[in-house]
Amino acid sequence: MSHGNIATLETPALLLERPRMQANIARMRARMKTLNVAFRPHVKTAKCVEAALAMCGGSPGPITVSTLREADFFSGHGFTDILYAVGITPNKLPHVQALLARGIRLTVILDNIDSARALVDAVAATGMRAGALIEIDCDGHRAGVLPDSPLLLEIAGILAAGGVTVAGVMTHAGGSYECHSDESLRAMAEQERARTVHAAQRLRAAGHAAPVVSVGSTPTALFAQDLGGVTEVRAGVFVFFDLVMAGLGVCGVDDIAASVLTTVIGHQREKGWTLVDAGWMAMSRDRGTAAQAVDQGYGMVCDVRGLALPDYIMIAANQEHGIIAHRHGEANAALDVPVGTQLRILPNHVCATAAQHARYQILEGGGTVEAVWERVGGW
Amino acid sequence: MSHGNIATLETPALLLERPRMQANIARMRARMKTLNVAFRPHVKTAKCVEAALAMCGGSPGPITVSTLREADFFSGHGFTDILYAVGITPNKLPHVQALLARGIRLTVILDNIDSARALVDAVAATGMRAGALIEIDCDGHRAGVLPDSPLLLEIAGILAAGGVTVAGVMTHAGGSYECHSDESLRAMAEQERARTVHAAQRLRAAGHAAPVVSVGSTPTALFAQDLGGVTEVRAGVFVFFDLVMAGLGVCGVDDIAASVLTTVIGHQREKGWTLVDAGWMAMSRDRGTAAQAVDQGYGMVCDVRGLALPDYIMIAANQEHGIIAHRHGEANAALDVPVGTQLRILPNHVCATAAQHARYQILEGGGTVEAVWERVGGW
Repeated sequence: MSHGNIATLETPALLLERPRMQANIARMRARMKTLNVAFRPHVKTAKCVEAALAMCGGSPGPITVSTLREADFFSGHGFTDILYAVGITPNKLPHVQALLARGIRLTVILDNIDSARALVDAVAATGMRAGALIEIDCDGHRAGVLPDSPLLLEIAGILAAGGVTVAGVMTHAGGSYECHSDESLRAMAEQERARTVHAAQRLRAAGHAAPVVSVGSTPTALFAQDLGGVTEVRAGVFVFFDLVMAGLGVCGVDDIAASVLTTVIGHQREKGWTLVDAGWMAMSRDRGTAAQAVDQGYGMVCDVRGLALPDYIMIAANQEHGIIAHRHGEANAALDVPVGTQLRILPNHVCATAAQHARYQILEGGGTVEAVWERVGGW
Repeated sequence: MSHGNIATLETPALLLERPRMQANIARMRARMKTLNVAFRPHVKTAKCVEAALAMCGGSPGPITVSTLREADFFSGHGFTDILYAVGITPNKLPHVQALLARGIRLTVILDNIDSARALVDAVAATGMRAGALIEIDCDGHRAGVLPDSPLLLEIAGILAAGGVTVAGVMTHAGGSYECHSDESLRAMAEQERARTVHAAQRLRAAGHAAPVVSVGSTPTALFAQDLGGVTEVRAGVFVFFDLVMAGLGVCGVDDIAASVLTTVIGHQREKGWTLVDAGWMAMSRDRGTAAQAVDQGYGMVCDVRGLALPDYIMIAANQEHGIIAHRHGEANAALDVPVGTQLRILPNHVCATAAQHARYQILEGGGTVEAVWERVGGW
């Protein structure tokens, strides 16, 4: 059903090129098939039922969530196998119990003794049957137990003694976002695999079944050469891709499926500035490309059809104002288009940009909005 | 009505200390009274009916909005005098017309001939009666016509000839966010006043009534010594204040009314890290203090009662993970509190942080949530 031409949309608005999304998904799913590993897409990027279904191959499958609000939302749309991939805390256990009571197979993660004890206590008090993965630190990036730490077996022991299934281990190679070559991405993927499998083997040697070995990040998922011992892969940002991923060499700019539609509201010609009605509220404050070889400011400019104008970036952003200029600051090279002209801005980090919007305007390669897909937000 | 103790809140959650907000509002309103100028608070920070009413002194008054969605929302709650403070574009004129047709006194702004012609054409086509302010560039920061530019009179001439009321001029001294002393803030306030009044005088000399001279930013509103010739002031961030404002010396850390409640989810003790369940999704990616004398990372840590722990900041943020550490990176000075401990994080830029949340949990100085106030978001 057509929802009209994008020329009639009030701006800013979040556009999604569905064919690009489908191609990104097909690429990832083919890679998972080649590597002979199960796929548990992370829905924190899209936060959208239609996109999650596409990531799962058309019908509900295993997913990863970043909030219990996402777990509520997706479980209400037929997704019953959910990994909540942020360390569990006592104040969230009643919510976990409510999801389990509704028949959702919710798995939680933890990396410390306090959380293990809190989970065991909740199981004893309520009789809930929660599976838990122990989070492994594979790259020093964030959370997790080191693969060789005695803590790993200590946590598993507390869980097992308390009637909590030690389902296995999980990790996220967030360090892959700082890799600067294909070679280093391949090495990071192998490090992620090897360290996590090693942790699982230690658990098994200590008598825990620990069947699950879950790894994940978009760069390592696409650059892994072998995933021996890994049982599932999680990835999210690949669904739309973004300038950070393009900067890493994980995708091309033409693979980026999501963009912000904006309208020119004025010029400051002597400075080479073109002002638009998308500021940080529409783009987010994410400056993920600032640390990369090519800084894309607050995003790369495209014309209204989506053709990249790679010399132009959003150099500054206020709440509802963006300033577009030539990337080398040449005032006489200003983007000289009339007030009212629509442009698209490609995002640095699409998880952050999409989170600023309530819905996607779905395009099929033309200028007509073919559908509107809603997002879920908050906690 | 009590909504329970904050200990039972699922985190992250946005807290608002109502007495601090009231004190911030009282300070601003007293300042406006002393300066003998009308106040038109900007609701883009709070985006909340209860807060907007408090800013207006208890009942609906003139407000400033940053989106037409805000205009819809607040006009539905009794606010009928609304300035939409982003340059108007043709694709928004049907929405403007719809608001005017509902009896809302909506004023738009513009700074160029294309927009003036589009507005005049819409008036001719629909008979709508829109008032317009011409935006003035008082500090080179963003949009607007230079006060001495011939363009100012050209735009006014097009509007007047087309039956659009030239209501006056407006500016925003965004440059005040880069001032580093009380003296420079006072000078910026005077520059904002003088240049905008000068532009209005040029319009009047050319035969336009131009009764409105509207200026605004929280720092200049609080540091202005004299507002002769100014008819109204707009300001928004003062309602809650934030670390950027504290860094400017415009408020103290203890004046900051909004914070993000979070829970400790783990530690990486050898690095001095405490991990919490508030990441950039809860804090925003705003790093506004990075350019100030004291960089507050992604926010300053407080204990659960709101007492600042100024040695601790959020040094890094992923989507749903924050990393808290000693501000000087001393691993042996880690914030050693158990998993499950609640903390509060003060925001760099409260407009951005609040925008990540759907509602405020209202506190009255204690640990009980006394009310829940909803926000409006999107476009």
